Amino acid sequence: MGNGDVTLSEFARRVPVPPARPFLDTFRANLKETFFPDDPLRQFRDQTVPRKFMLGLKYFLPIFDWAPTYSVSLFKSDLIAGITIASLAIPQGISYAKLANLPPVLGLYSSFVPPLVYAMMGSSRDLAVGTVAVASLLISSMLGKEISPVQDPALYLHVAFTATFFAGLFQASLGLLRLGFIVDFLSHATIVGFMGGAATVVCLQQLKGMLGLQHFTTATDLVSVLQSVFSQVHQWRWESAVLGCCFLFFLLVTRFFSKRRPKFFWVSAAAPLTSVILGSLLVYLTHAENHGVQVIGHLKKGLNPPSATSLTFMPPYIMVALKTGIITGIIALAEGIAVGRSFAMFKNYHIDGNKEMIAFGTMNMVGSLTSCYLTTGPFSRSAVNYNAGCKTAMSNVIMSVAVMITLLFLTPLFHYTPLVVLSSIIISAMLGLIDYESAIHLWHVDKVDFCVCVGAYLGVVFGSVEIGLVIAVSISVMRVLLFVARPRTTVLGSIPNSMAYRRVDQYPAAQSVPGVLILGIDAPIYFANASYLRERISRWIDEETERTNGETSLQYLILDLGAVGSIDTSGIGMLEEVKKIVDRSGIKLVLANPGSEVMKKLDSSKVLEAIGHEWIFLTVADAVASCDFMLHTCKSNGASCENVV
Amino acid sequence: MGNGDVTLSEFARRVPVPPARPFLDTFRANLKETFFPDDPLRQFRDQTVPRKFMLGLKYFLPIFDWAPTYSVSLFKSDLIAGITIASLAIPQGISYAKLANLPPVLGLYSSFVPPLVYAMMGSSRDLAVGTVAVASLLISSMLGKEISPVQDPALYLHVAFTATFFAGLFQASLGLLRLGFIVDFLSHATIVGFMGGAATVVCLQQLKGMLGLQHFTTATDLVSVLQSVFSQVHQWRWESAVLGCCFLFFLLVTRFFSKRRPKFFWVSAAAPLTSVILGSLLVYLTHAENHGVQVIGHLKKGLNPPSATSLTFMPPYIMVALKTGIITGIIALAEGIAVGRSFAMFKNYHIDGNKEMIAFGTMNMVGSLTSCYLTTGPFSRSAVNYNAGCKTAMSNVIMSVAVMITLLFLTPLFHYTPLVVLSSIIISAMLGLIDYESAIHLWHVDKVDFCVCVGAYLGVVFGSVEIGLVIAVSISVMRVLLFVARPRTTVLGSIPNSMAYRRVDQYPAAQSVPGVLILGIDAPIYFANASYLRERISRWIDEETERTNGETSLQYLILDLGAVGSIDTSGIGMLEEVKKIVDRSGIKLVLANPGSEVMKKLDSSKVLEAIGHEWIFLTVADAVASCDFMLHTCKSNGASCENVV
Repeated sequence: MGNGDVTLSEFARRVPVPPARPFLDTFRANLKETFFPDDPLRQFRDQTVPRKFMLGLKYFLPIFDWAPTYSVSLFKSDLIAGITIASLAIPQGISYAKLANLPPVLGLYSSFVPPLVYAMMGSSRDLAVGTVAVASLLISSMLGKEISPVQDPALYLHVAFTATFFAGLFQASLGLLRLGFIVDFLSHATIVGFMGGAATVVCLQQLKGMLGLQHFTTATDLVSVLQSVFSQVHQWRWESAVLGCCFLFFLLVTRFFSKRRPKFFWVSAAAPLTSVILGSLLVYLTHAENHGVQVIGHLKKGLNPPSATSLTFMPPYIMVALKTGIITGIIALAEGIAVGRSFAMFKNYHIDGNKEMIAFGTMNMVGSLTSCYLTTGPFSRSAVNYNAGCKTAMSNVIMSVAVMITLLFLTPLFHYTPLVVLSSIIISAMLGLIDYESAIHLWHVDKVDFCVCVGAYLGVVFGSVEIGLVIAVSISVMRVLLFVARPRTTVLGSIPNSMAYRRVDQYPAAQSVPGVLILGIDAPIYFANASYLRERISRWIDEETERTNGETSLQYLILDLGAVGSIDTSGIGMLEEVKKIVDRSGIKLVLANPGSEVMKKLDSSKVLEAIGHEWIFLTVADAVASCDFMLHTCKSNGASCENVV
Repeated sequence: MGNGDVTLSEFARRVPVPPARPFLDTFRANLKETFFPDDPLRQFRDQTVPRKFMLGLKYFLPIFDWAPTYSVSLFKSDLIAGITIASLAIPQGISYAKLANLPPVLGLYSSFVPPLVYAMMGSSRDLAVGTVAVASLLISSMLGKEISPVQDPALYLHVAFTATFFAGLFQASLGLLRLGFIVDFLSHATIVGFMGGAATVVCLQQLKGMLGLQHFTTATDLVSVLQSVFSQVHQWRWESAVLGCCFLFFLLVTRFFSKRRPKFFWVSAAAPLTSVILGSLLVYLTHAENHGVQVIGHLKKGLNPPSATSLTFMPPYIMVALKTGIITGIIALAEGIAVGRSFAMFKNYHIDGNKEMIAFGTMNMVGSLTSCYLTTGPFSRSAVNYNAGCKTAMSNVIMSVAVMITLLFLTPLFHYTPLVVLSSIIISAMLGLIDYESAIHLWHVDKVDFCVCVGAYLGVVFGSVEIGLVIAVSISVMRVLLFVARPRTTVLGSIPNSMAYRRVDQYPAAQSVPGVLILGIDAPIYFANASYLRERISRWIDEETERTNGETSLQYLILDLGAVGSIDTSGIGMLEEVKKIVDRSGIKLVLANPGSEVMKKLDSSKVLEAIGHEWIFLTVADAVASCDFMLHTCKSNGASCENVV
């Protein structure tokens, strides 16, 4: 027996129990890894106080980082990019404000102040700030349920400002509280489906403008909209429809052209403004406004009036403002952060998500005090900015100046702009958001992600924007929970000519070891899967016994815990129960490759003593070697196996 | 170069891309593993039709399984156990019905019909069916908010039956839809905290009976109850309090005695009935009912009247009934399933969770039609049943017969039973549910589980039972999501004298390989952690470069994907981005030990081509050997590293 011990220890490279660390140390380390994974304070270490102050200033206002080295050549690039995006921002701003049932001039206001704030605080060099269609639609559908924009426009406007304020507050809080990872729960698949659905819904809403209808449903789902459209066929205005289709065709052709030849990006960028000018001229010359073509009408001249006193924090409107703010805020954030990160990837610089959230939040809070509504970094506009060769956030400043000039001098020119042109601009922008290619890619790579995507799309189109979002996030979270609730357990076998043990269903060459069942567990062991795992392991043992028909009796169960990253008390209890179950069948439980957390908890719960530290091995190969040794020693010595160790 | 290729391939044991399987096959396999992990239909395969019918009958009515082989010796054991639990069931039933603000006789009805149903359908041999305190309290607090049991007792009773019906329907549906794993989301820690909190709250409620108060708050939280008690100090009845304390002392002493000497289990089991008899005699002899000691009063004689026509499915009461039904149903289920599983563990037989749910559900639906309210398998009574030596579910039948005899002939005897004795019985039962030892164990083993437990306890005691439950489940789910959102990435090093690579923070002996950074990822790569992982990996590279001070430049990044059980499209996108990031720094990305799902998705998304199949290895050791070989070949030949492969 003493002999057996010595020889066994040759195989046993011990898995150490990590030394106990004070609870607060572990807690602090975990907290840091969870909320400060990027270690933003690293650069502040070992610096003098004035240097720390400068670094802090640069951290919160990145403009101090790039402005000192700003040069004329950079300015030239930014100037071109800024003017290009301004020519896109003006018609889009007016269109989206109409979509949100807000006064059109708000779209211009929103392209003046927020870009200036972002230019100071934002860390992306390519993001172009502006309003977005989806958030505009959400504002009109969520606020429209409580307040009529026609009967009480002033109240509607004030609540919209309040919602913008809450959206900014929420965004900044997420950033300050380092909760940026919440945005990560909106997966790529969710966003593809959601954006596609929202784009479809926005296009449907444009049927009102295209057909020159006066009355329209406030609902956004496909069924209500089609009912509304086809119930008033006799109200359709052909003049409006023809004009709209012409402009839409023009916009789509220019977009197609620019897509084929990226050098001519400015063709599609300038097309909306060209359409507005052409449309306005046409109406002015033909007096079409008297023949069923609706126009924008009077636009107030002058810069943003202050709106701090308009914010209403009184019930019952505070609740709807809060809800709208949070939902639009998180959607705007998801788009803005995703856009910022994508372009940072292209140009190989780093974007700090939490810092961006603070920038977006401040931008919207300041915006809500200066008659702006919700802004973010729209993908289409940022792509134009990028293609136009922008170098820094200065392009936003240029756009802002261009919009300021428009506000001060050019608003009367928009009097005769037909609404149908705005509808064409929106539709042409939205069609680009329906990313069916991504959906096909999802189907090929991951069916669950495809379900998430389609769920979000159908939810938005047939339900509402909120329903689509809830469906998509629920499926995504369900998937994560289901993964944890039903972890994969697989039989491992020995790969010939190697020390490795791998899944027999993945590697056909893998060979099982007689008398030993090796199971790999693929997930953390938690309360949610502990009873499943216990029963699944029992079933594996039963199946193994059935398979071998009792020829070679099962002697050892080796659990490979290499992939078990974490374990809780239920998981520890499960291991204890498995130990009891296999003991009863005369099988020995052996653990291989447990992580430090597993070892620590096995030790502190005394389950380690029950299993026996000598039955825990560094690798599966070590464990198998020991088991083999025991099996043969027992057979040749004729001694009982249980007595050797 | 050709030479390099040949030599490289010696190291490369290829990781195969699994062959494409039809989507429906994979889908069916996943569905089966998720909903039928225990493969309940296995025994039906290759059987004749009559045999299949018999097996099906035995599956749904396990009584057909054990009844044919039932013997006299088994009956003797069950008879003793049945009488023992009946002596516990009668006083407890009356007490808990009072707690639920229902007529006391309902407690007896509920111990008559449901045990008979369970005896036919249940697969546990040790479970004793009956009402439980927590569910009773929940019924009184949730229904009491909408309907006053004093002003409208008939309506209250009908809604309670309806809630029981919904609870049964919900339980049976969970079982039929194979959603039993939902119960697993109530972790052990949650249940310890929740039960402790509920027991505390139930004890507080008994202050009404103990102090002989007439008026009492309907709220269940600590603050309201203490306010209510201390605002009417002058109403306290010392007679009642003294009597209560005496009986409580008696019950606790017997329990302590039985716990020390398990052979005398019947002492504590018979103590409640003894208390009831003693208390009733005392009141009858001293006429204490005229001196401030409240008594039960008239109990209707006879068996359960039918109550099918009492179920109310009309708004507004259907909503409260539905809500109460679902919450009490899931809590009752969690207790019943946990109890059944524990005793099955002790006696080494198998309990099918989904089948048990169908049994519990049917039992409650039948119960709701025969004037019973919610029943389950309470822990305390089942433990007495087990200690009394029960062998089959026949002990439930014996208990049921004993209760039937009581209902038919003995109800008048309970007329003089003082309420304060019932309060003592409840308090003594509840004190056993406050499992502070488990809480201490949780603190030692897992701090997060301890937080869950304390959160549930405080939520129940200071908020309400529902709030406590929501807090506990939220913390548990948050923990799972946080684990997935912030997976651990660790640097691996070579363990001397072995082919294994392990975490350097866990194994102090592990040595890093110059020029090669080996990272292990501990969790599935999902949308929720993809951007975190990308940034964390970049930071590891930066830190590694800083650490070596640029002495030995980093040439290879090896990602050990052994623990990555699953990956979605965001995860694949992350790997593609990491590839681009490291390429830019002139570092080669190498993957080790990817699972079949990872390989399949790498292949279908074309990322495999970008990384290069020859850079994917079976083990970290293989990968390191290849890298080493490349490094040395490059150095000695003076050739550029990039050109070799």
